[in-house]
Amino acid sequence: MSDIKNTPAHEGQPPYLLTPGPITTTATVKEAMLRDWGSWDGDFRAMTKQLCDQLLIVANAVDSHVCVPVQGSGTFAVEATLASLVPKDGKVLVLMNGAYGQRLAKTLDYLGRDYVALDKGDYLPPMPEEVEELLTQDTGITHVTVIHCETSSGILNPVPEIAEVVACLGRRLIIDSMSAFGAIPVDAQTLPFDALISSANKCFEGVPGFGFSIIRRSALENCQGYAHSLSLDLYEQWLYMEKTGQWRFTPPTHIVAAFLQAMAEHEAEGGVAGRLARYQRNQQRLVAGMKELGFRTLLNEKWLSPIIVTFLSPQNPRFDFEEFYNRIKAHGFVIYPGKLTVVDSFRLGCIGQLYDEQIDQVLQAIAAVLDEMGIDSGHAELPEQNAVTA
Amino acid sequence: MSDIKNTPAHEGQPPYLLTPGPITTTATVKEAMLRDWGSWDGDFRAMTKQLCDQLLIVANAVDSHVCVPVQGSGTFAVEATLASLVPKDGKVLVLMNGAYGQRLAKTLDYLGRDYVALDKGDYLPPMPEEVEELLTQDTGITHVTVIHCETSSGILNPVPEIAEVVACLGRRLIIDSMSAFGAIPVDAQTLPFDALISSANKCFEGVPGFGFSIIRRSALENCQGYAHSLSLDLYEQWLYMEKTGQWRFTPPTHIVAAFLQAMAEHEAEGGVAGRLARYQRNQQRLVAGMKELGFRTLLNEKWLSPIIVTFLSPQNPRFDFEEFYNRIKAHGFVIYPGKLTVVDSFRLGCIGQLYDEQIDQVLQAIAAVLDEMGIDSGHAELPEQNAVTA
Repeated sequence: MSDIKNTPAHEGQPPYLLTPGPITTTATVKEAMLRDWGSWDGDFRAMTKQLCDQLLIVANAVDSHVCVPVQGSGTFAVEATLASLVPKDGKVLVLMNGAYGQRLAKTLDYLGRDYVALDKGDYLPPMPEEVEELLTQDTGITHVTVIHCETSSGILNPVPEIAEVVACLGRRLIIDSMSAFGAIPVDAQTLPFDALISSANKCFEGVPGFGFSIIRRSALENCQGYAHSLSLDLYEQWLYMEKTGQWRFTPPTHIVAAFLQAMAEHEAEGGVAGRLARYQRNQQRLVAGMKELGFRTLLNEKWLSPIIVTFLSPQNPRFDFEEFYNRIKAHGFVIYPGKLTVVDSFRLGCIGQLYDEQIDQVLQAIAAVLDEMGIDSGHAELPEQNAVTA
Repeated sequence: MSDIKNTPAHEGQPPYLLTPGPITTTATVKEAMLRDWGSWDGDFRAMTKQLCDQLLIVANAVDSHVCVPVQGSGTFAVEATLASLVPKDGKVLVLMNGAYGQRLAKTLDYLGRDYVALDKGDYLPPMPEEVEELLTQDTGITHVTVIHCETSSGILNPVPEIAEVVACLGRRLIIDSMSAFGAIPVDAQTLPFDALISSANKCFEGVPGFGFSIIRRSALENCQGYAHSLSLDLYEQWLYMEKTGQWRFTPPTHIVAAFLQAMAEHEAEGGVAGRLARYQRNQQRLVAGMKELGFRTLLNEKWLSPIIVTFLSPQNPRFDFEEFYNRIKAHGFVIYPGKLTVVDSFRLGCIGQLYDEQIDQVLQAIAAVLDEMGIDSGHAELPEQNAVTA
């Protein structure tokens, strides 16, 4: 994508991000970064404690789990969790239906941990019956991993049903809930998991710089010496935090401050339920508007997440994604490329500081751009519906 | 240190940080974080390129080296560099004189790389003659690591002299320049190194969230498959950045923006020379003032760095560090505890947004606190001088 131009933002304002994160955050979240903290000082240690305590409350996991933050992107937190929880002689069933499931398998390659993959391709969901069959067949499997919302396609995987099967068969579940936690309800008392991983810059609407893992205390207690990496050793990170209240290595202090503000705003919006309601509204408004413009979604309604939606690219020869992207950016919106191997597509995120007003504006921008590009929006030549019908 | 109180900052202002980082940054550096960027977008890719290009210029390494940033703290960047550059059958000589040298050895334990350590204890410098002898004796050693400024004691290690010996004997040098690069001159054309590692929140006066490694291109080109970790694989990070201009995984976009502003301010201050001059002035003013108050430095003048200075704690039984810390914090300054195994000490940093005014204020605060604590500053009962005389 080297030809994407650095178009100036719409009317001098930074563009809105219709992406799966980093997302558009509030001014107040960013303003929380306007001071410096000593990472060793009591003020900052209190902030770290608050961060962990509040995340456990959101997951209803206060008594059963601990929250261990780790510096870096979400991928760092996923790698740290796998390395810290799966023993060297463990075996993982990787439920894979897109780029993030594939990345998880690649991580296990680095770690030298044994795994098998259930690869459903670009957009089909892993089904509980398949998981049950695989776990029954292979009693060596100790852990199962699943991507909560696979942003490659935007699908919301059937995590509660999978979790039930995994628990029934006595295995341990690790949920990569990067793009879901904070907007999709998670209750650790009814959804059995050993770890659930997310990051600062997704549905809590903070800025990027750390991830975190909500880990069953009784599992983590047995994990000394598992990790392959000093920096990514969540057992040691947890132990040190319990003892000192500090991160083992310099934390992203400003990002933590922004996240606390983001969590306060999340709570003020009505917590997970409030945020989910807004994202769902965004998604429904966006999908309805795009359909009016002649676009089709990759997935049928049942599997659409309120996080990000994949639209099939018009098959019109005048449609060029780079031009489409740049022209929409000139209108003040950054959209997201597709990540499918089979069909041409692009993605529009529903998360971050987006409301009816922005959804309507982006729809107007897309309509205008189709017009500019000479693609008749009402009759765009789209491929046959390729949606999941499972 | 669980009894350090969360004292409100002096006169409603956040305290100045006299620590080795995170440090006090300018308002303009922090204000650079007041917008959001899409990490995939061209605007941000241009920012990443600028970051890498400018760091190579500061090290005079444009033609010989590449700059690879990595998410997380400085320790993440050190681990990533060791893992990515030292082959599985390599052997490292770890020059150790404090906590950061020890951490480097611990990292090699995690990585399963062979090493020998020259451990000089708390504050003695590794000398070039010792390095020469060890490298001559053990021809299996492939790499040498040294800490540029070991902030445990505040010592500035004799890196140019060590680098010369290492190069003469045909070995590869990795410099942990976390607390030095940006203020201590580094010229890759006269100081031979394979890698020099630093982070955003030290002498460039950015905010914490990423580190970077300046790596000899011809060395890195041969390092495919060395790294133990997906997240910390600098070979793959470099390759992907060369190809796409993007970080492999979500970058800390706001921290990068703050760092670009910090680099502009670094240049405006006269680059490395200008910054060094201010830090040296801070250090001299601080040490002179502390001596007037009856304090002694751990190291003698020859080994004092302009980064951070270790002072011996008064042996007066009324001196309690936690009380001392809290009282100074109430005056608006956060100081740093000692990290020595043998003698009681504390540390005062000279880096960050500190000028004559702040140095004078902290000296006044310390004088007042000694008075409050009933310790006669003019005649504080200090231990015998324990300074390095090497």
